[in-house]
Amino acid sequence: MTLAPVLNRLDQDQGAALDRLLALLRIPSISTDPAYKADCDAAADWLVQDLATIGFTAEKRPTPGHPMVVAHGGDGGPHLLFYGHYDVQPVDPLELWDSPPFEPALEDTPNGTVIRGRGTSDDKGQLMTFVEAMRAWVAEHGELPCKITIFLEGEEESGSPSLVPFMKENAEELTADFAMICDTGLFEGRVPAITTMLRGLVAEEVILKAASRDLHSGMYGGLARNPIHLMAQILADLHDETGRVTLDGFYDGVPELPGEIRAQWQGLGFDHAGFLGDVGLSVPAGEQDRTPLEMIWSRPTAEVNGITGGYTGEGFKTVLPAEARAKVSFRLVGTQDPEAVHAAFVKHVESRLPADVTAEFPLGHGAPASRMPTDDPGFETVRGALTDEWGVEAAFVGSGGSIPIAGHFQDILGMTSMLVGFGRDDDAIHSPNEKYDLDSFTKGARSWARILAALSGKG
Amino acid sequence: MTLAPVLNRLDQDQGAALDRLLALLRIPSISTDPAYKADCDAAADWLVQDLATIGFTAEKRPTPGHPMVVAHGGDGGPHLLFYGHYDVQPVDPLELWDSPPFEPALEDTPNGTVIRGRGTSDDKGQLMTFVEAMRAWVAEHGELPCKITIFLEGEEESGSPSLVPFMKENAEELTADFAMICDTGLFEGRVPAITTMLRGLVAEEVILKAASRDLHSGMYGGLARNPIHLMAQILADLHDETGRVTLDGFYDGVPELPGEIRAQWQGLGFDHAGFLGDVGLSVPAGEQDRTPLEMIWSRPTAEVNGITGGYTGEGFKTVLPAEARAKVSFRLVGTQDPEAVHAAFVKHVESRLPADVTAEFPLGHGAPASRMPTDDPGFETVRGALTDEWGVEAAFVGSGGSIPIAGHFQDILGMTSMLVGFGRDDDAIHSPNEKYDLDSFTKGARSWARILAALSGKG
Repeated sequence: MTLAPVLNRLDQDQGAALDRLLALLRIPSISTDPAYKADCDAAADWLVQDLATIGFTAEKRPTPGHPMVVAHGGDGGPHLLFYGHYDVQPVDPLELWDSPPFEPALEDTPNGTVIRGRGTSDDKGQLMTFVEAMRAWVAEHGELPCKITIFLEGEEESGSPSLVPFMKENAEELTADFAMICDTGLFEGRVPAITTMLRGLVAEEVILKAASRDLHSGMYGGLARNPIHLMAQILADLHDETGRVTLDGFYDGVPELPGEIRAQWQGLGFDHAGFLGDVGLSVPAGEQDRTPLEMIWSRPTAEVNGITGGYTGEGFKTVLPAEARAKVSFRLVGTQDPEAVHAAFVKHVESRLPADVTAEFPLGHGAPASRMPTDDPGFETVRGALTDEWGVEAAFVGSGGSIPIAGHFQDILGMTSMLVGFGRDDDAIHSPNEKYDLDSFTKGARSWARILAALSGKG
Repeated sequence: MTLAPVLNRLDQDQGAALDRLLALLRIPSISTDPAYKADCDAAADWLVQDLATIGFTAEKRPTPGHPMVVAHGGDGGPHLLFYGHYDVQPVDPLELWDSPPFEPALEDTPNGTVIRGRGTSDDKGQLMTFVEAMRAWVAEHGELPCKITIFLEGEEESGSPSLVPFMKENAEELTADFAMICDTGLFEGRVPAITTMLRGLVAEEVILKAASRDLHSGMYGGLARNPIHLMAQILADLHDETGRVTLDGFYDGVPELPGEIRAQWQGLGFDHAGFLGDVGLSVPAGEQDRTPLEMIWSRPTAEVNGITGGYTGEGFKTVLPAEARAKVSFRLVGTQDPEAVHAAFVKHVESRLPADVTAEFPLGHGAPASRMPTDDPGFETVRGALTDEWGVEAAFVGSGGSIPIAGHFQDILGMTSMLVGFGRDDDAIHSPNEKYDLDSFTKGARSWARILAALSGKG
């Protein structure tokens, strides 16, 4: 009878838990934009204060960028580290939001009640699920079920520049038996899932510069080099006509999907028509000889995430621009090497540069893909707890997204990660009108209460 | 002794003339941006008031867009219509200006004194050259040397939507013996020139839309259609590897340069290395089998003037965008048909659209190229006046720019245009740090005084 009162407490405390989440969501902690630096700091302060009320020894820890939040509490095995991030994505294009992104509110929809606002699903709503589970446990039992460290980052949406140095400097303090990462989703919005395969990411920006200033296309057009034309050629050449990425050696380290996993994924009955239909599409683009689920879970990609050059305002301006910029990302799988992909991209661009054009690459950081050791018995324990809460057999799944922290926990701290989260594909993370289903939040918190009970043997 | 005192008066009145120009330049009359509508109106009011002080019957005349300024004065033949435009280009990227664009000032440079600010060269500084010449003439002789109509437009930088309807409605009032258009430049900054060949222009915007909202590239990348990739392919396909434009039928109506004109242009000794070197370039891009002067004066072009899509702010955002936009312009020569070029561009795009992507074309307006009848004796008269002022034999030249009004004057009013202006290639029109050389302004005004004297027979 250790778990039941905790679940009961969570059900009774729902309104207050939601108020706490809304307070955190109101802080516009956009990490990539320096204008929101104080807000990132305020979000960290809010979390430190909240964790202290549960009995954690919680601190805001400085970094050269946004601060980390580190909190310790509880006693006895196993030692669990919980990770989440309090920073959020930018909100543009702002005009596409139906309500202000930082004035979160409940909203009734045909698919149930949702919490609407930036960060609801990615990742404030998710990280508060485990905080609420711990709060309820302490409220009922006076203490946590085992030793717990909470580790919250404020730079996840901007490349995590401070993460690795901080982990290295505080390795002993942060090393636990398992890392629990709450930043993933349910499979097709209904099947609880532990994400055991994650793609890596290399983020690039390329800046092409030609003339020393913008030119008049009437005076110079047809004679002077136009860097947008060159950028178009460079980006068009990133894929061949079958959708394969053309960078030299790009597919080195890309494994074929084992037959067993392929069979398991086929068994999931992924509805790609519905997945695409939800966002107004019908036909899979990309590699023409791969299944849709392979494409998003186990194949590497090259995507242009942004492009700009010349006049982009109202009306028309006959300018021949001095420069063009593009942001390009590569999703990695298997043992693809981020450094090698960066080098191949630089070579792809530089081999296409004519006279008078220079290229700059201000980014180029990345992280490799990761795959979890699912033969560790802890995975079955957590899978059982999730199955109990949702009434549906929980699954081990892949993910197209990149959560480099799982790789860092493995490489730097020698720690296995369990990626458990409650987001849904239609949460519109990184997009206008982001939401988190109310039941993701409430059943998410209940799920963590069950996982804490199961892993600590206090079920 | 009719001309000499006018030239003398212009020299003495230089300071006041400059103050008048600076006052006009301070009005930010950006026609393409609706936010500056009142400023366009204010510039028109300023001109009406100024022309009235010279004795013109001047009026601001409404259109559905920005107003026209029409003024009448003088008596006796020939009847000359003077055209200029009081609107200016947008100023972005603002951060590249060394001084505020609408706080014009004199500046000493290694190449002499310049007037710095938006509109100094295009076209407020230029139009004030003929206004100052007329002011000086009236001040010395009490009246203009012949019948003069002034016609100033406020939409030249935004496609001139009201121009043709206004000219048709006021055809009788605007028809004169010659149209004098002051919106062109000196050849290589030193040879006074009458521009007798002008390229036409088709301005296009293409908007590609795929998913119903921006997507997360981790979740959808490699599966969902990325409209930036498609845009890159479409723009890369606009030219073949030799620099030729690939649109179907694009070169229909493009004449080969007559041997005589080719010889005359070769005689000009165009310094393309210097022309490109001034803007940090060294190698001619574009059609590889054409000379640089041919490319900018007599060959048609396709240029991308702007492109935008996805995340373009600080940092990185792994978005897979719902749409991509590009602004594309085509310069036309000979008898190329703007409608046919628009249709070929639409076909170029639509034939490359895969499932799930739509294309929109909100612009697509244009004007054909034009060529002046240089056998009319008025051309030699004006050429002589220019030669006298500058001490260098004036030339008949081509221009890469598009001044559709010359074609409209011919087609609608049956009137031959003389394009005479005093801009220089390094004026940075349409760019940051636009300038007009002080001697363009002062010798420009003196040039018009001479032209008025020569054409009216009152030299």
